Amino acid sequence: MLIAKHQNIIDNAVKANHERTFYAQYPEHPKAYGEEAPPQGEATFKDMLNKPFSLLKQKVTEGWAGEEVSPYTREPLGITYPVIAVDELVKAGKRAGSRWAQLSVADRASILTETLEKIKDHFFTIAHATMHTTGQSFMMSFQASGPHANDRALEAIAMGYQQLQHFPEQQTWEKPMGKISIKLEKTFKAIPRGLGLVIGCSTFPVWNSLPGMYADLITGNAVIVKPHPKAVLPIAIVVAAIQQVLEENGQDPYTCQLAADSSEHLVTKELCEHPEIALIDYTGGSSFGNYVESLKNKTVFTEKAGVNSVILDSVKDIDAVLNNLAFSVSLYSGQMCTAPQNFFIPESGVNTPNGKLSFNEVATKFKDAIVALVNNPKMGAGTLGAVQNDDTVQRVKDAQHIGGKVLLSGAPVANEEFTGARTFSPTVLEVSSADTGIFEKELFGPVVLLVKTKDTDHSIQLARQMAISHGAITCGAYTTDDTVKEKIADAMNSAFTPVSFNFTGFIWVNQHAAFSDFHVTGGNPAGNASFTNPEFIVKRFVWVGNRTYVD
Amino acid sequence: MLIAKHQNIIDNAVKANHERTFYAQYPEHPKAYGEEAPPQGEATFKDMLNKPFSLLKQKVTEGWAGEEVSPYTREPLGITYPVIAVDELVKAGKRAGSRWAQLSVADRASILTETLEKIKDHFFTIAHATMHTTGQSFMMSFQASGPHANDRALEAIAMGYQQLQHFPEQQTWEKPMGKISIKLEKTFKAIPRGLGLVIGCSTFPVWNSLPGMYADLITGNAVIVKPHPKAVLPIAIVVAAIQQVLEENGQDPYTCQLAADSSEHLVTKELCEHPEIALIDYTGGSSFGNYVESLKNKTVFTEKAGVNSVILDSVKDIDAVLNNLAFSVSLYSGQMCTAPQNFFIPESGVNTPNGKLSFNEVATKFKDAIVALVNNPKMGAGTLGAVQNDDTVQRVKDAQHIGGKVLLSGAPVANEEFTGARTFSPTVLEVSSADTGIFEKELFGPVVLLVKTKDTDHSIQLARQMAISHGAITCGAYTTDDTVKEKIADAMNSAFTPVSFNFTGFIWVNQHAAFSDFHVTGGNPAGNASFTNPEFIVKRFVWVGNRTYVD
Repeated sequence: MLIAKHQNIIDNAVKANHERTFYAQYPEHPKAYGEEAPPQGEATFKDMLNKPFSLLKQKVTEGWAGEEVSPYTREPLGITYPVIAVDELVKAGKRAGSRWAQLSVADRASILTETLEKIKDHFFTIAHATMHTTGQSFMMSFQASGPHANDRALEAIAMGYQQLQHFPEQQTWEKPMGKISIKLEKTFKAIPRGLGLVIGCSTFPVWNSLPGMYADLITGNAVIVKPHPKAVLPIAIVVAAIQQVLEENGQDPYTCQLAADSSEHLVTKELCEHPEIALIDYTGGSSFGNYVESLKNKTVFTEKAGVNSVILDSVKDIDAVLNNLAFSVSLYSGQMCTAPQNFFIPESGVNTPNGKLSFNEVATKFKDAIVALVNNPKMGAGTLGAVQNDDTVQRVKDAQHIGGKVLLSGAPVANEEFTGARTFSPTVLEVSSADTGIFEKELFGPVVLLVKTKDTDHSIQLARQMAISHGAITCGAYTTDDTVKEKIADAMNSAFTPVSFNFTGFIWVNQHAAFSDFHVTGGNPAGNASFTNPEFIVKRFVWVGNRTYVD
Repeated sequence: MLIAKHQNIIDNAVKANHERTFYAQYPEHPKAYGEEAPPQGEATFKDMLNKPFSLLKQKVTEGWAGEEVSPYTREPLGITYPVIAVDELVKAGKRAGSRWAQLSVADRASILTETLEKIKDHFFTIAHATMHTTGQSFMMSFQASGPHANDRALEAIAMGYQQLQHFPEQQTWEKPMGKISIKLEKTFKAIPRGLGLVIGCSTFPVWNSLPGMYADLITGNAVIVKPHPKAVLPIAIVVAAIQQVLEENGQDPYTCQLAADSSEHLVTKELCEHPEIALIDYTGGSSFGNYVESLKNKTVFTEKAGVNSVILDSVKDIDAVLNNLAFSVSLYSGQMCTAPQNFFIPESGVNTPNGKLSFNEVATKFKDAIVALVNNPKMGAGTLGAVQNDDTVQRVKDAQHIGGKVLLSGAPVANEEFTGARTFSPTVLEVSSADTGIFEKELFGPVVLLVKTKDTDHSIQLARQMAISHGAITCGAYTTDDTVKEKIADAMNSAFTPVSFNFTGFIWVNQHAAFSDFHVTGGNPAGNASFTNPEFIVKRFVWVGNRTYVD
């Protein structure tokens, strides 16, 4: 029944995955969800504050913990989550997984699609939860943790649905041998690798976790979700919704478990190193990511840090370009893994239809565009959102003293709705192309480095080297010259980095659309996996074929 | 033109890969290749002896080396191969690869299919070369290094051909935004990971190397083939044929290079650790395989050692079963990675239509079947072939003193054609189920262990534990009970081991057919890769998408 109900959604998603045209199962505009949903969602969120989170179906074994603080109010959310011993999580996950693996692919796909429909009912609650844990603006919180995350999850379901049916379940094999023949009945099964672990981050607790969770689940693996202790609520609501749908459909809710912990007693390594954990999805800093990648006998999917570049060669409309880039660096205060950091600009300047614009002119215009955006009362606070934690603020403050010429000093920006919000506008530094010690690091947060290069070839060379040595998730490039365009594409693609050319208007390099853009390529140090290419799915199960001799 | 010539072969192979019915592009019977081919192939082989191998297009930089000795004549082949410095190999490979990567998938697929057609012309030469390096019988040498290897190569080409076209090369993406819309032109490219290295073994120098070589090549990566210094000639002939076709079609012959070395100065580790080597395919012992798997920043595909089990529960015709198994353990003197080693038999015996046959009766019948086979003048020497090296003979001799009861002592078997052949018939030991120290090791060569278990459940438990802890490539099982059959399938499949049920007659557990059987699953310690599932292909390239804003 559930299969019939959702077959259309799944078929459309499989088609969209292949074609890579624009597709969205879950509209990104809040108005698409009715007038009642926003106030209801906010009320539900407020009602969750200052009490234990009670929606999970998991049995508490060790007590309760919670330490979330809103970057907007700087006040604790006061919510606690059940803390469960690692061995209990693993035992329950193994038991649930062995049952989940027995289901047909079609059954799993339909139940998982039903979970997305259930999560949809919580989009506005999740939006407030995301806002008050990550510091994202309300609109970004809604879109990234709501429709965009659900679309990424559906993308993973669809890719799994297809890959798991790559080979027939059974087949007769008959080999002619002259006058006789040999006949075998064969079966082909996609056996799940084992128990999955998804490790979340504090800035995108839902968007970055759902692809791995749904990739594990569609391929028949149970999953344990280990959120960042400072950003639990958004994914806790998601896990609770999944558990509810599992139970409603006669499945074991422990197929998807939440593993809340505390900064005082993190369980991430204990989980990672547990012999029963076969699959690990990780989003976060490179240091822990490298540890995860080094684990033996685990299949690991990582998204770590990178340094994203913009190459400025020639433009049609410099103001349109710099307004676009000013938004890109300001959006969520540069706390997106896709935000550009290093801007490579030739010392001779940038070509425009009205002649060369010098390096300094470009730098000044860029600075001005950022200042205009962040000081625009209708735009500034909403674009910047809040900074997730004090470490990031400190890093941005420190950035003013790491060398280079400070063109613009970041500073707090007033937020009318939340006067106590932790805000910080972008800092812009000019550095020389010799200052690799400065621009080869990811300076997570609102820090922009303008790197003066000899020429565009030099810009390309540096951007490529950064991607190879330190990783890159995005690269923006501006050129009106097709030869240069091809050169940039070839150079960056050879470093497994995608390029976005000449973005202006309402589209930004930071955005990766489900069903069309691969998020992270998996080919450079920024991460070894990609949302959602076939590799993201096929590594989670093993094809095994049995043969029976037929007399 | 080449595309049109081979499109049919490729399309048929893609279809066969999916359907997994019986399919062979290259017939396995020698007679299919005409009357002239066998004597010509043998003459060509003889003409190659005692001189430098001159067919490669590679420039010699360090001299010549060769140390092959025929297991049949015990005489050196006297052939030397060019030895080239690792840096030269890598430099030439990188240069060739950057050109090869520019070709369309269809072009690469057609040129590679043309190489298979060229290799076909050398099947009989390769057969003699394989025979006199590995010790395989002539028929096995012909089939495994000829048609079967070519079919495995074509399987990899076909899987790559399909996977590389999983996404469109370009697509328009248009996002509706109320009254306006955003339009992007997108391209999707499968960027090759980099230079490949394929490390061969001494027993199957062609069959085990071609899948990795062709998987690298179809996905746009140049490849360096590092053969075992004792088994170079078969693969040298293949590489030379590939180079010839590449050159004839305007491609760089260095796209596929041979890296011959000597036991005195092995270059395998130097190649493995070279930073420009991105992909490694390895076949061989577990110790070196574990080293290869531990290398950082490499994408690695391994086939290592395992301990293969046979579970005997109940049979329709015990003689048919034991004749089949006698052949399986004798074929190429147990030097196949798919050969069974541990036979789990309940202490209460095996059910037959005529009542229980006791453990001892089964053991005696099995021993007798082996003796009858190896002493049959028309069958024995041809089935056993020769033992590749003295270490294996020593291991088999030592096996008689590792504990357990010696039911049958292996010994040399006369070979009429080659009186000096290094031969050894199977040794059969009876061990207790407590003797895990004995049966948990791969005893490569003709060693058979009959393990007395409590009952079939116990047999299953032991076979599964062996597969999980020590790896398994095959499992044979005999049962007439559907419940037991399902139990065995579930248990072994959960250890990522395929099961072959009730094989009798002209089909053996050792055989894995291209286009239908996955060879190794990649899920247990016997290896992390599988010929040829989608994972074997998709890990060799990276999907990268570029986007261009359309005004």
